[in-house]
Amino acid sequence: MKFKVSAELGYDVKAPSTLILNVHALRTAHQIILDEKLSIEPYIKAEELPSTNGENRFVRLDITDTGTVNIKYEATVDNYYEVRDYRDFQEVPVSQFDPAVLTYLNPSRYCQSDKLYRLANNTFGNIDNTYRQVVAVTEWIHKNVEYLSGFSNSETSAYDTVTQQAGVCRDFAHLGIALCRALTIPARYFTGYAYKLVPADFHACFEAYLGGEWILFDATKLAPLNGLVKIATGRDAADAAIASIFGDVFCTHVKADCQMLNDEPFEPIYYTKSVFDGITYL
Amino acid sequence: MKFKVSAELGYDVKAPSTLILNVHALRTAHQIILDEKLSIEPYIKAEELPSTNGENRFVRLDITDTGTVNIKYEATVDNYYEVRDYRDFQEVPVSQFDPAVLTYLNPSRYCQSDKLYRLANNTFGNIDNTYRQVVAVTEWIHKNVEYLSGFSNSETSAYDTVTQQAGVCRDFAHLGIALCRALTIPARYFTGYAYKLVPADFHACFEAYLGGEWILFDATKLAPLNGLVKIATGRDAADAAIASIFGDVFCTHVKADCQMLNDEPFEPIYYTKSVFDGITYL
Amino acid sequence: MKFKVSAELGYDVKAPSTLILNVHALRTAHQIILDEKLSIEPYIKAEELPSTNGENRFVRLDITDTGTVNIKYEATVDNYYEVRDYRDFQEVPVSQFDPAVLTYLNPSRYCQSDKLYRLANNTFGNIDNTYRQVVAVTEWIHKNVEYLSGFSNSETSAYDTVTQQAGVCRDFAHLGIALCRALTIPARYFTGYAYKLVPADFHACFEAYLGGEWILFDATKLAPLNGLVKIATGRDAADAAIASIFGDVFCTHVKADCQMLNDEPFEPIYYTKSVFDGITYL
Amino acid sequence: MKFKVSAELGYDVKAPSTLILNVHALRTAHQIILDEKLSIEPYIKAEELPSTNGENRFVRLDITDTGTVNIKYEATVDNYYEVRDYRDFQEVPVSQFDPAVLTYLNPSRYCQSDKLYRLANNTFGNIDNTYRQVVAVTEWIHKNVEYLSGFSNSETSAYDTVTQQAGVCRDFAHLGIALCRALTIPARYFTGYAYKLVPADFHACFEAYLGGEWILFDATKLAPLNGLVKIATGRDAADAAIASIFGDVFCTHVKADCQMLNDEPFEPIYYTKSVFDGITYL
Repeated sequence: MKFKVSAELGYDVKAPSTLILNVHALRTAHQIILDEKLSIEPYIKAEELPSTNGENRFVRLDITDTGTVNIKYEATVDNYYEVRDYRDFQEVPVSQFDPAVLTYLNPSRYCQSDKLYRLANNTFGNIDNTYRQVVAVTEWIHKNVEYLSGFSNSETSAYDTVTQQAGVCRDFAHLGIALCRALTIPARYFTGYAYKLVPADFHACFEAYLGGEWILFDATKLAPLNGLVKIATGRDAADAAIASIFGDVFCTHVKADCQMLNDEPFEPIYYTKSVFDGITYL
Repeated sequence: MKFKVSAELGYDVKAPSTLILNVHALRTAHQIILDEKLSIEPYIKAEELPSTNGENRFVRLDITDTGTVNIKYEATVDNYYEVRDYRDFQEVPVSQFDPAVLTYLNPSRYCQSDKLYRLANNTFGNIDNTYRQVVAVTEWIHKNVEYLSGFSNSETSAYDTVTQQAGVCRDFAHLGIALCRALTIPARYFTGYAYKLVPADFHACFEAYLGGEWILFDATKLAPLNGLVKIATGRDAADAAIASIFGDVFCTHVKADCQMLNDEPFEPIYYTKSVFDGITYL
Repeated sequence: MKFKVSAELGYDVKAPSTLILNVHALRTAHQIILDEKLSIEPYIKAEELPSTNGENRFVRLDITDTGTVNIKYEATVDNYYEVRDYRDFQEVPVSQFDPAVLTYLNPSRYCQSDKLYRLANNTFGNIDNTYRQVVAVTEWIHKNVEYLSGFSNSETSAYDTVTQQAGVCRDFAHLGIALCRALTIPARYFTGYAYKLVPADFHACFEAYLGGEWILFDATKLAPLNGLVKIATGRDAADAAIASIFGDVFCTHVKADCQMLNDEPFEPIYYTKSVFDGITYL
Repeated sequence: MKFKVSAELGYDVKAPSTLILNVHALRTAHQIILDEKLSIEPYIKAEELPSTNGENRFVRLDITDTGTVNIKYEATVDNYYEVRDYRDFQEVPVSQFDPAVLTYLNPSRYCQSDKLYRLANNTFGNIDNTYRQVVAVTEWIHKNVEYLSGFSNSETSAYDTVTQQAGVCRDFAHLGIALCRALTIPARYFTGYAYKLVPADFHACFEAYLGGEWILFDATKLAPLNGLVKIATGRDAADAAIASIFGDVFCTHVKADCQMLNDEPFEPIYYTKSVFDGITYL
C-alpha cells in the first residue's frame, strides 16, 4: 500500500544544541521509500546516522544559532505486510531463538519484565500457546488500562501502568512488551505513522516474536494494524524517541500525519478473539 | 599482561531448560585468548552465539535432562591497556559522538538517567570537564555508598542506590552509569575477571566515553584498574548477566578466579585526585 | 476463650539505646488480661506509654549498658469475638462513617491506596456490596500472592506486592488494606498472637470497617480467624512494629507463641465463599 | 497578630457525594478564632467532625444534589508565636520524648524516612545538634530542589523529590519531614494560610520536634515564618488534604488568601545561618 506521511516539529533554541530526530520512515525490504524530503527552516545540515541494527534512521542536527527551528519531513512509502494464521502455529523454543532477538527478552528502562514475572505467569501462564498469550495480554491491557492523555509522563514505565491502569499509546506498548518478556516472549517497541489514527499523531505499539517472526500488536486498538508505516523499533521508547534533545531547546509543536496515497481499497484489520491472525511487517 | 581466568558454575536442573552463559573472555584486538576450555559435566553441546556488536560472547546450552550440571571455563588471556593523560583533554561534543555510542546515553533498566538529571547536574554540573566529572561521580559514589553484601538484589537499580546508598559492585556500576548519562556522557556496564579482587569473584564496573574513547572507572575501588579481563560490556546488568536461565533451574554455586600467569611485575593502578589518568582497554 | 501467649526477643546492644516494644496484648472491653509478666535480663526499667487511641500498648526501654538483653513477655488473655452474618448487611455511607475511622481511608507508608484506585475499581468495583468486595479482595490476594519468606523486606509495600505477587503475612495485610481503602472501605493493620499458626510466630492481618464495625480478614489463611489475640492496630506496619530500635542495637532472635489455656473445644473459623460470615473482635 | 483569612472552593458535582473540607483555622490556646463563617451555595448542611488529636477541624458535607457547589470560608484569627534561641539548646533524647510525638518518627505515605536513613545520616549525621541538623536539612532542600509548578503530582513523595529535585511547597515539606525522621527527629506536616505568600494560596511547610517543642521550618522560603495561620498538622499531606472527595466530583477552583487585619508592624522572620532562632506556634 502507498502512504503519504508527514511530520512537523518546531523548536525554540536557547543555546547551541544537538538534536537527534527519529521521524524518517524506515527502509526495509518490504517498506520502500518512493520519495522523501526533510526541510529545516532556517537551513541546518542534517547528518543521517548509520542505522543501529537496521532498526532506525536517526538524523543528527548540530544547531549553532539560537531562535526558532521548524522541521518538516514528508515521504511517500510503499509497504507490505503479511497475515499469518495461527491455527497451526509452531512454537519455537528459546534454544532455537535467533540470537539477535535474545536482547528483547531483557528488561529495559520502561519495561521491567523482571518485576512482572509472577503477575504475568499467574495471569497468562496457563495459556498453552504463545500467540494466544500475546493476544490475551493485549486484550487484558485494552480492558484494564484507560487511554488518558496527561495521566502519564516521560518517566512512566510498565511497572507503573500495570497498577495505575491509565496512559497513552506508549504506555500501552510498554506494558505489552514487559508482560511478553516476563512470559519469555521477545518483544520490542514499534513507532510509526498510523493511517486512520484519530487524532492524527505518531503512534506506538509493539511486536512480539512468534514462531520466528515479529508480529504486530496494539493494545490501544486505536488504529488498524495494516495501516502502519514503521519509523523505528527498539527495546522501548528510550531507543525510539521522536527527538532527543541535547541542550537548551524547547519543543513548541509536534504534528504527524498519514494518508493513503491513492484511493486503494482498505479493509482495516484488528485482531478478534475468534480469529487466529497475526500481522507482520517482516 | 597474561592472566589465567576461570569460572565454575553449578546448576540443579528440574526440567528441560535453556541456559545462556556469559563467562567467556571477550576477543578484541587488545585482548587475545591464548587458550580456553569450556567443560560441562555431564556433556551438553554448547553453541557460541554471534556477538552483539562485539560486546559479548554468549554461549547457549540446551539442557534436555534434569539433574546436576557443572560448568567450568578456563582461559589464558593476554590483554593490553593504555593510560591516558587528561591534563590536555579535548572534549568531544554530542554532535561529533560516534553514532554507535549514542545508545549509551539512553536510560536503561537499572540506570534511569532520565530521573537523575537534576541531581547529577546540581551535584556535578559545575565541573567544567567531563573527565573530572566522571572522577567526581566515582568519588561521590565511593564516599556515599556503602559496600554491603545482601542489601540489594537483582531488581535494585541506580534510582534506589542513589538514595539508599548501599549495594555491591553491580549497584556501584549502575549508579556511575546513570549519573554519567544524566550528564550527557555515554557510559556502559563492564563485567570481567578481576586480579587481586578479595574475595575472588566476577567483578562489575563501568566505562565512560571520554574524548572518543571508553575509559574504565570503578567506584568500589576494590580491584586495580589494570588487572581486569573483560567478559562483556552492555547497557547495564540486563545485557551482561553471567547466566540467563530459561526454565526450572537453580544455581547452586558460582566461582570466579583471576591469576597473573607469570610473575610479571604488577603495579596496581587506581585513580587519585591529583593525577589525571584514565585507563582504557580500547 | 483463654489463651496463653508469650514472646521472646533478644538484642545485642552496642551502645546506649532506646527500644520501644509492642508485644503486650491489648486491653479492650472484650480482651481481658488475666495476668501478664515482662521479664528483662539484665533488669531495665520499662515504661508503659499511654496508648495511642487505645490501639496499642507500647513499652519504652532506656538501655544504658551495652551487651546482651533478653526480653520475655507472658500473658494469660481472655478474649471474645462475635460472628456477623452479612446476608442482610446494611451499608454505611461515608457521610455516616464514625469520624474516627476516616484516617483509615488515607494512604499510608506501606498501603498506597491512591496508586491502586483504578486497579481496585477495575477488579472489584462491580461487586455491589462492601462485605463481598473485601471477601473478593482477600480471595484475590490468596490466589495471586505466593507466601514466600525472604522475598520481601521491611521496605516492601502494597504497591510492590500487587505486582510482584509474593511476600509474608505483613505484605498480604498491606495489600488487603490498600485495596480496601482504594474502594473507600476503611482498613487497618492488625498484629497479634495466632493460635495454630505454623510455624509459631507473630501474625499480621487486617480489619475492614463494614457496617460500622471492624471485621477481621486474613488473606494468608494461615491461622483460624477466631484464634487471635490482638497486640495492636494501626495504619500499617509502621504503626505496629513489634520493636522500634533507636540506637546501635541488633536483634538476635524473636519468638512468639500462642496456646489455648484449657482444652476448650475450638472450631477453627475461616471464611468460605458460600457463607456470609464476618469475625469481629469489637 | 490578627489575620483575615479566606478560602474559596468550587466543585462540579456529578452524583451524590461526600466532601470533607479542611480549610478551617485551627483552634489552639495560641490561635483564637475571633469570628468565622462558612458559606455554601447552594446550602448544604456542614458537620464539623471531632478533631483528631487537636490537629485539624474537618467539616463533612453530604451532597445529595448534582450541580455546582461554591464554598467560602472566612475567619478573623488572632495568633501568637514565640521565638526560641538555640544557642543553649538542650537536646531531648528519644527516651524522654513525649509519647504522643513518637508516631511522627514513623515513615508515612509521602515521607519514606526508612528509605532515606543512609542518605540523611551520610549528609547530616556529622552535625552534632538536632536544631542545626534541621536547619541544614532545610538549607539543603532549598539549595537543591527547584520550585516548579506542575512537575510533581498528588502521588509524588519524598523518595521521588530527594532524587528528582523539583516540586512545590508540599514536596519541600515532605522531603524535610522524611529527612528529619531518618535522623530520629519527629517531624510533621503543617498546612496553613500564609501572609505575604506570592501568589496567594494555601501553604505547606513542616514542624520538627526540638527540645520538646514543635518548631516551624519552611524549605521553600516563600513566606515569612511568623505570618502563618495553622489549618492542620498531620503525618503528611494524606492527613491534611484541603479537601477529600468521595464520589463523582470535580474541583473547579481553589483560592486562599491571608491579610493582616490592622496595619500592625510586621517584621518578616526567615531563619539565617548565623542566627539560632526557631519559631514555634506552640
